[in-house]
Amino acid sequence: MQQQISVVTIGSSDLVRSKRFYAEGFGWKPVFENEEIIFYQMNGLMLAVFALGSLETDMNRTGSLKPAGFALGHNVHTKDDVEPLIDRLASAGGTILRPADAPLHGGFRGYVADPDGHAWEIAWNAAWSIDDHGLVTFGL
Amino acid sequence: MQQQISVVTIGSSDLVRSKRFYAEGFGWKPVFENEEIIFYQMNGLMLAVFALGSLETDMNRTGSLKPAGFALGHNVHTKDDVEPLIDRLASAGGTILRPADAPLHGGFRGYVADPDGHAWEIAWNAAWSIDDHGLVTFGL
Repeated sequence: MQQQISVVTIGSSDLVRSKRFYAEGFGWKPVFENEEIIFYQMNGLMLAVFALGSLETDMNRTGSLKPAGFALGHNVHTKDDVEPLIDRLASAGGTILRPADAPLHGGFRGYVADPDGHAWEIAWNAAWSIDDHGLVTFGL
Repeated sequence: MQQQISVVTIGSSDLVRSKRFYAEGFGWKPVFENEEIIFYQMNGLMLAVFALGSLETDMNRTGSLKPAGFALGHNVHTKDDVEPLIDRLASAGGTILRPADAPLHGGFRGYVADPDGHAWEIAWNAAWSIDDHGLVTFGL
Protein backbone atom coordinates (compact mmCIF):
# COMPACT_ATOMS: atom_id res chain seq x y z
CA MET A 1 0.00 0.00 0.00
CA GLN A 2 1.45 3.37 -0.97
CA GLN A 3 2.10 5.69 1.98
CA GLN A 4 -0.01 8.27 0.26
CA ILE A 5 -2.63 10.89 1.14
CA SER A 6 -4.56 11.85 -1.99
CA VAL A 7 -6.75 14.62 -0.67
CA VAL A 8 -7.43 16.53 2.51
CA THR A 9 -11.07 17.63 2.54
CA ILE A 10 -12.29 20.27 4.97
CA GLY A 11 -15.90 21.26 5.48
CA SER A 12 -16.94 24.86 4.90
CA SER A 13 -20.13 26.61 5.95
CA ASP A 14 -19.43 29.49 3.53
CA LEU A 15 -17.38 28.78 0.41
CA VAL A 16 -17.00 32.46 -0.51
CA ARG A 17 -15.55 33.23 2.89
CA SER A 18 -13.27 30.18 2.68
CA LYS A 19 -12.05 31.11 -0.79
CA ARG A 20 -11.14 34.59 0.39
CA PHE A 21 -9.18 33.16 3.32
CA TYR A 22 -7.09 30.83 1.16
CA ALA A 23 -6.60 33.42 -1.59
CA GLU A 24 -5.77 36.45 0.55
CA GLY A 25 -4.10 34.49 3.35
CA PHE A 26 -1.97 31.94 1.52
CA GLY A 27 -2.23 33.33 -2.02
CA TRP A 28 -3.46 30.00 -3.37
CA LYS A 29 -5.40 29.58 -6.62
CA PRO A 30 -8.02 26.88 -7.22
CA VAL A 31 -7.52 24.33 -9.96
CA PHE A 32 -11.30 23.75 -10.06
CA GLU A 33 -14.36 25.22 -8.38
CA ASN A 34 -18.12 25.08 -8.54
CA GLU A 35 -20.90 26.01 -6.09
CA GLU A 36 -20.20 22.98 -3.92
CA ILE A 37 -16.44 22.43 -3.84
CA ILE A 38 -13.11 24.12 -4.44
CA PHE A 39 -10.01 22.06 -5.30
CA TYR A 40 -6.44 23.28 -4.86
CA GLN A 41 -3.62 21.33 -6.53
CA MET A 42 -1.05 20.98 -3.74
CA ASN A 43 2.33 19.24 -3.50
CA GLY A 44 1.27 15.92 -4.92
CA LEU A 45 -2.16 15.86 -3.34
CA MET A 46 -5.36 17.88 -3.36
CA LEU A 47 -6.85 20.24 -0.81
CA ALA A 48 -10.65 20.22 -1.16
CA VAL A 49 -12.88 22.82 0.50
CA PHE A 50 -16.30 21.19 0.39
CA ALA A 51 -19.70 22.63 1.38
CA LEU A 52 -20.24 21.13 4.81
CA GLY A 53 -23.66 19.60 4.12
CA SER A 54 -22.31 17.93 1.00
CA LEU A 55 -19.30 16.57 2.86
CA GLU A 56 -21.50 15.22 5.63
CA THR A 57 -23.76 13.55 3.08
CA ASP A 58 -20.76 12.12 1.25
CA MET A 59 -19.06 10.73 4.35
CA ASN A 60 -22.40 9.65 5.88
CA ARG A 61 -21.72 11.39 9.19
CA THR A 62 -23.54 14.51 10.33
CA GLY A 63 -23.17 17.12 13.03
CA SER A 64 -19.49 17.28 12.39
CA LEU A 65 -18.45 20.94 12.19
CA LYS A 66 -16.49 21.23 15.39
CA PRO A 67 -12.87 22.06 16.08
CA ALA A 68 -11.21 18.68 16.06
CA GLY A 69 -8.05 16.92 17.14
CA PHE A 70 -6.28 17.55 13.89
CA ALA A 71 -4.11 20.18 12.29
CA LEU A 72 -2.81 20.92 8.83
CA GLY A 73 0.74 22.17 8.54
CA HIS A 74 2.30 24.63 6.14
CA ASN A 75 6.06 24.95 6.56
CA VAL A 76 7.95 28.00 5.34
CA HIS A 77 11.59 28.32 4.33
CA THR A 78 12.89 30.70 7.00
CA LYS A 79 12.04 31.66 10.58
CA ASP A 80 11.28 35.20 9.43
CA ASP A 81 8.51 33.92 7.14
CA VAL A 82 6.38 32.58 10.00
CA GLU A 83 4.95 35.70 11.65
CA PRO A 84 4.10 37.66 8.47
CA LEU A 85 2.12 34.68 7.17
CA ILE A 86 0.25 34.27 10.46
CA ASP A 87 -0.60 37.98 10.39
CA ARG A 88 -1.78 37.74 6.79
CA LEU A 89 -3.99 34.74 7.59
CA ALA A 90 -5.53 36.65 10.50
CA SER A 91 -6.19 39.63 8.21
CA ALA A 92 -7.87 37.27 5.73
CA GLY A 93 -10.43 36.05 8.28
CA GLY A 94 -8.46 33.58 10.40
CA THR A 95 -8.21 33.43 14.18
CA ILE A 96 -4.81 33.16 15.84
CA LEU A 97 -4.79 30.24 18.30
CA ARG A 98 -1.12 30.49 19.27
CA PRO A 99 1.14 33.39 18.32
CA ALA A 100 4.43 32.12 16.95
CA ASP A 101 6.99 30.91 19.46
CA ALA A 102 9.71 28.28 19.74
CA PRO A 103 8.61 24.79 20.82
CA LEU A 104 10.92 22.57 22.88
CA HIS A 105 11.65 20.33 19.89
CA GLY A 106 13.09 23.28 17.97
CA GLY A 107 12.00 25.48 15.11
CA PHE A 108 9.41 28.23 15.30
CA ARG A 109 5.65 27.98 14.86
CA GLY A 110 2.19 29.34 15.52
CA TYR A 111 -1.39 28.19 14.86
CA VAL A 112 -4.22 29.92 13.01
CA ALA A 113 -7.78 28.62 12.65
CA ASP A 114 -9.44 29.16 9.29
CA PRO A 115 -12.99 30.66 9.21
CA ASP A 116 -14.52 27.24 9.95
CA GLY A 117 -12.13 26.47 12.79
CA HIS A 118 -9.73 24.16 10.92
CA ALA A 119 -6.31 24.59 12.49
CA TRP A 120 -3.25 25.42 10.39
CA GLU A 121 0.20 25.24 11.93
CA ILE A 122 2.58 27.69 10.26
CA ALA A 123 6.09 26.47 10.97
CA TRP A 124 9.75 26.82 10.21
CA ASN A 125 11.58 23.52 10.74
CA ALA A 126 15.16 23.50 9.49
CA ALA A 127 15.38 19.69 9.74
CA TRP A 128 12.57 19.02 7.27
CA SER A 129 13.61 19.77 3.70
CA ILE A 130 11.17 21.25 1.20
CA ASP A 131 12.08 20.96 -2.45
CA ASP A 132 11.18 23.32 -5.30
CA HIS A 133 7.92 21.42 -5.85
CA GLY A 134 6.92 21.76 -2.19
CA LEU A 135 7.65 18.12 -1.37
CA VAL A 136 8.51 17.71 2.30
CA THR A 137 10.94 15.12 3.66
CA PHE A 138 11.33 14.09 7.28
CA GLY A 139 14.54 14.84 9.14
CA LEU A 140 15.81 15.12 12.72
CA MET B 1 3.44 31.09 -1.40
CA GLN B 2 3.86 27.43 -2.29
CA GLN B 3 0.57 25.52 -2.58
CA GLN B 4 1.93 23.06 -0.10
CA ILE B 5 0.70 21.03 2.90
CA SER B 6 3.69 19.90 4.96
CA VAL B 7 2.00 17.74 7.55
CA VAL B 8 -1.42 16.47 8.49
CA THR B 9 -1.55 15.94 12.26
CA ILE B 10 -4.33 13.94 13.85
CA GLY B 11 -4.92 13.59 17.57
CA SER B 12 -4.88 10.15 19.16
CA SER B 13 -6.13 9.09 22.58
CA ASP B 14 -4.17 5.79 22.34
CA LEU B 15 -1.01 5.70 20.23
CA VAL B 16 -0.68 1.90 20.43
CA ARG B 17 -4.20 1.47 19.09
CA SER B 18 -3.57 4.05 16.36
CA LYS B 19 -0.30 2.43 15.32
CA ARG B 20 -2.02 -0.93 14.95
CA PHE B 21 -4.73 0.62 12.79
CA TYR B 22 -2.29 2.24 10.37
CA ALA B 23 0.03 -0.79 10.29
CA GLU B 24 -2.56 -3.54 9.92
CA GLY B 25 -5.06 -1.46 7.95
CA PHE B 26 -2.90 0.44 5.47
CA GLY B 27 0.37 -1.43 5.97
CA TRP B 28 2.25 1.80 6.69
CA LYS B 29 5.56 2.00 8.55
CA PRO B 30 6.63 4.94 10.73
CA VAL B 31 9.73 6.95 9.85
CA PHE B 32 9.98 8.06 13.50
CA GLU B 33 8.15 7.38 16.72
CA ASN B 34 8.40 8.05 20.43
CA GLU B 35 5.90 7.95 23.32
CA GLU B 36 4.20 11.14 22.13
CA ILE B 37 4.14 11.11 18.33
CA ILE B 38 4.40 8.84 15.31
CA PHE B 39 5.50 10.25 11.94
CA TYR B 40 4.82 8.59 8.60
CA GLN B 41 6.71 9.80 5.51
CA MET B 42 3.96 10.18 2.91
CA ASN B 43 3.92 11.40 -0.71
CA GLY B 44 5.86 14.61 -0.16
CA LEU B 45 4.36 15.41 3.21
CA MET B 46 4.14 13.94 6.69
CA LEU B 47 1.28 12.25 8.51
CA ALA B 48 1.70 12.78 12.25
CA VAL B 49 -0.30 10.84 14.85
CA PHE B 50 0.14 12.93 17.98
CA ALA B 51 -1.01 12.21 21.55
CA LEU B 52 -4.15 14.29 21.85
CA GLY B 53 -3.17 16.18 24.98
CA SER B 54 0.14 17.13 23.42
CA LEU B 55 -1.55 18.29 20.22
CA GLU B 56 -4.05 20.36 22.18
CA THR B 57 -1.23 21.95 24.16
CA ASP B 58 0.74 22.61 21.00
CA MET B 59 -2.14 24.17 19.08
CA ASN B 60 -3.41 25.98 22.20
CA ARG B 61 -6.96 24.68 21.79
CA THR B 62 -8.54 22.11 24.06
CA GLY B 63 -11.62 19.90 24.08
CA SER B 64 -11.06 19.08 20.46
CA LEU B 65 -11.44 15.33 20.00
CA LYS B 66 -14.69 15.24 18.09
CA PRO B 67 -15.55 13.98 14.64
CA ALA B 68 -15.07 17.02 12.48
CA GLY B 69 -15.93 18.41 9.09
CA PHE B 70 -12.83 17.04 7.46
CA ALA B 71 -11.70 13.89 5.73
CA LEU B 72 -8.43 12.44 4.57
CA GLY B 73 -8.41 10.64 1.24
CA HIS B 74 -6.43 7.63 0.10
CA ASN B 75 -6.95 6.81 -3.56
CA VAL B 76 -6.25 3.37 -4.95
CA HIS B 77 -5.38 2.34 -8.49
CA THR B 78 -8.41 0.23 -9.44
CA LYS B 79 -12.05 -0.03 -8.46
CA ASP B 80 -11.46 -3.54 -7.17
CA ASP B 81 -8.96 -2.23 -4.63
CA VAL B 82 -11.54 -0.15 -2.72
CA GLU B 83 -13.61 -2.72 -0.84
CA PRO B 84 -10.75 -5.00 0.31
CA LEU B 85 -8.96 -2.00 1.82
CA ILE B 86 -12.13 -0.80 3.59
CA ASP B 87 -12.60 -4.31 5.00
CA ARG B 88 -9.00 -4.44 6.14
CA LEU B 89 -9.28 -1.06 7.86
CA ALA B 90 -12.41 -2.23 9.66
CA SER B 91 -10.60 -5.37 10.80
CA ALA B 92 -7.76 -3.20 12.10
CA GLY B 93 -10.04 -1.24 14.42
CA GLY B 94 -11.79 1.20 12.08
CA THR B 95 -15.51 1.90 11.80
CA ILE B 96 -17.18 1.89 8.39
CA LEU B 97 -19.17 5.11 7.91
CA ARG B 98 -20.23 4.47 4.31
CA PRO B 99 -19.77 1.13 2.54
CA ALA B 100 -18.28 1.66 -0.91
CA ASP B 101 -20.64 2.84 -3.63
CA ALA B 102 -20.56 5.03 -6.74
CA PRO B 103 -21.08 8.77 -6.19
CA LEU B 104 -22.81 10.92 -8.80
CA HIS B 105 -19.54 12.52 -9.86
CA GLY B 106 -18.12 9.15 -10.82
CA GLY B 107 -15.61 6.71 -9.41
CA PHE B 108 -16.16 4.46 -6.41
CA ARG B 109 -15.61 5.20 -2.73
CA GLY B 110 -16.41 4.52 0.89
CA TYR B 111 -15.51 6.07 4.25
CA VAL B 112 -13.90 4.52 7.33
CA ALA B 113 -13.28 6.27 10.65
CA ASP B 114 -10.01 5.50 12.39
CA PRO B 115 -10.10 4.55 16.12
CA ASP B 116 -10.27 8.24 17.11
CA GLY B 117 -13.01 9.06 14.61
CA HIS B 118 -10.85 10.66 11.90
CA ALA B 119 -12.53 9.96 8.57
CA TRP B 120 -10.64 8.36 5.69
CA GLU B 121 -12.20 8.25 2.25
CA ILE B 122 -10.97 5.23 0.27
CA ALA B 123 -11.54 6.00 -3.38
CA TRP B 124 -10.91 5.00 -6.94
CA ASN B 125 -10.96 8.00 -9.26
CA ALA B 126 -9.80 7.30 -12.80
CA ALA B 127 -9.46 11.02 -13.61
CA TRP B 128 -6.86 11.72 -10.91
CA SER B 129 -3.48 10.28 -11.81
CA ILE B 130 -1.18 8.82 -9.16
CA ASP B 131 2.46 8.40 -10.10
CA ASP B 132 4.91 5.80 -8.82
CA HIS B 133 5.81 8.06 -5.88
CA GLY B 134 2.15 8.44 -4.88
CA LEU B 135 1.89 12.02 -6.15
CA VAL B 136 -1.68 12.85 -7.08
CA THR B 137 -2.68 15.23 -9.88
CA PHE B 138 -6.10 16.73 -10.44
CA GLY B 139 -8.12 15.78 -13.53
CA LEU B 140 -11.71 15.86 -14.73
